[in-house]
Amino acid sequence: MITYGHGGDIYGYSGTGRTVLDFSSNINPLGLPPTAKNALQHSEAACIAYPDPYCRAVSEKIAEYESVPVESVLCGNGAADLIYRIAYGLKPKKALVLAPTFSEYEQAIRQSGGAVFYHVLREENEFVPEQDFLQTLDRVQPDIVFLCNPNNPTGKTILKEIMAETATWCRDHNAVLVADECFLDFVCQGEALSMIKETDNNPNIIVLKAFTKFFAMAGLRLGYLICSNAALREKIWQAGQPWSVSGIAQLCGTAALCDDMYIAQTKTMIPRLREELQAELEKLPLRVYSGTANYLLFRTAITHLDQKTARQDILIRNCANYHGLGEGYYRVAVKSTEDNQKLISALRAIVVDNG
Amino acid sequence: MITYGHGGDIYGYSGTGRTVLDFSSNINPLGLPPTAKNALQHSEAACIAYPDPYCRAVSEKIAEYESVPVESVLCGNGAADLIYRIAYGLKPKKALVLAPTFSEYEQAIRQSGGAVFYHVLREENEFVPEQDFLQTLDRVQPDIVFLCNPNNPTGKTILKEIMAETATWCRDHNAVLVADECFLDFVCQGEALSMIKETDNNPNIIVLKAFTKFFAMAGLRLGYLICSNAALREKIWQAGQPWSVSGIAQLCGTAALCDDMYIAQTKTMIPRLREELQAELEKLPLRVYSGTANYLLFRTAITHLDQKTARQDILIRNCANYHGLGEGYYRVAVKSTEDNQKLISALRAIVVDNG
Repeated sequence: MITYGHGGDIYGYSGTGRTVLDFSSNINPLGLPPTAKNALQHSEAACIAYPDPYCRAVSEKIAEYESVPVESVLCGNGAADLIYRIAYGLKPKKALVLAPTFSEYEQAIRQSGGAVFYHVLREENEFVPEQDFLQTLDRVQPDIVFLCNPNNPTGKTILKEIMAETATWCRDHNAVLVADECFLDFVCQGEALSMIKETDNNPNIIVLKAFTKFFAMAGLRLGYLICSNAALREKIWQAGQPWSVSGIAQLCGTAALCDDMYIAQTKTMIPRLREELQAELEKLPLRVYSGTANYLLFRTAITHLDQKTARQDILIRNCANYHGLGEGYYRVAVKSTEDNQKLISALRAIVVDNG
Repeated sequence: MITYGHGGDIYGYSGTGRTVLDFSSNINPLGLPPTAKNALQHSEAACIAYPDPYCRAVSEKIAEYESVPVESVLCGNGAADLIYRIAYGLKPKKALVLAPTFSEYEQAIRQSGGAVFYHVLREENEFVPEQDFLQTLDRVQPDIVFLCNPNNPTGKTILKEIMAETATWCRDHNAVLVADECFLDFVCQGEALSMIKETDNNPNIIVLKAFTKFFAMAGLRLGYLICSNAALREKIWQAGQPWSVSGIAQLCGTAALCDDMYIAQTKTMIPRLREELQAELEKLPLRVYSGTANYLLFRTAITHLDQKTARQDILIRNCANYHGLGEGYYRVAVKSTEDNQKLISALRAIVVDNG
């Protein structure tokens, strides 16, 4: 059978006919922005015609939102599509990734014939990347580096100076830095950590972002990259079909970026909900890793915790299959206060009452 | 600038603010099936959650529609996504394609590092593949063969015996036959020409199909392949991201296949409209190639015909960039009687009145 090692598989579960509370994928609890909902109601024409292969309208809007030239924007069928296109288009021989981190970087690199090297993060440092990352760069001499900021599943941000030094190293060594900022808009004052401004002066930086989590559009599939290097963008574009981004995703994405209210609300709401959830988790006998995004990582000696919560119709992400983690690590999304409370009750029942 | 050599670029044109009649892409003039329209109106949840990576519900429905085991179905982000996944997953060294044919086979093979060989179809035979195709197979010894049936842009079907002999050749030579049947449902009694039944006994056949044209879902992106070979399917699946098919495409695709009325109506309507359009085109000083699908190819000595019709807000497909064709070939979609009449009037004004 085909293998799938991510969260969010609510469909495998749906056979039961019961309502499931999905903490295993990290999606904005506000749901679709009202502007995108409205666009969805008027999307028939966009469903019928071939989509704009160049994604012109949505790229214009993204460029405005991110304050970058429109030429620097390239859209994809979610950020995951762009990760594979980067791998197939640039065919890197050696990739450096953090461990733990999002597993699709590694999958894509292996598929395109490259070798993957790990910078293993230390649990005793709460998995925060430190200056020794730069020594790893020098030792491995990768031609591509993936840095997920904040990192998934740890929720830890990467110091701006480490990002900047990595970007400089890449420019000096003809390598590419892929800064995956898919969760950065959830981080309080995350803009200060972004590499987007640096793309202008450093043609070896690719910043990855998506509508998936922040705009709750995981089922519509829309991601983008920002890169000032036309030759890189051309190789990435050529690496797949011209119609990877659906017309309906382009329509709803354009609408979503117009929703200033939703954007502002999300940015104030998520940090508060995360702090609340973290405080509640810390009252339980769990080792909680302080996070910055819309999810939290914790550790427990209790086995099969995800199977136990699933019996209460609550899905959490078992992180045992992350390189650099192992049994006992779990990731939970930050959802509404009410839903978070249901999670806490379910966890308490398992780890305290029957632990 | 990024290059794009297909039809359907209504967006580049849309700057004019005028309504354009698009004969350059071949989409069912009925528009979305009513069942899919209804699904679209209730698609919010499918837009928010991660899509089912296995596309379980829609695959069940496809299996029923095509009378194949559900295990044989693999969905993609349109058939074009599957073409690239086949190329990246199987990494064929030598591919054999017809000339002319749909250009994405060739693009995908080159991207994955393979060489492309052509079986050039003869204009004097109206571009119909003949028995000498089997001699080309023996000479080229490809490890993958793409046969588009009916062929695009010619609209010519491929004799069942040529398809069958190619499939046998592929099985005997450890090669793969990709039978692209994306337009076959438009063909009168097209089922008799399909290779779907043969997939059961021949593990080296992949049949490609899509919702794009028949169900007018080009902007939603949903395609599928049918292949009984689990090892092949696994390689194709592994060649890209797990969430390539959006939740909304899965939802609307499932609904579309329930629309028996729409399916029946399309199957009776298109052949009639095509015959009407062909008869009208033949009254003009054009060399029309008799077709079987929802588009027609013709030739004229008049240059830049597509630019001339565009001035009347009508887009047609200039086929000069098809390998095996050249200047003077154009393809037009079969649309409603009313729209077809507008096309004929526009063409008459150019080729007769000002020709």
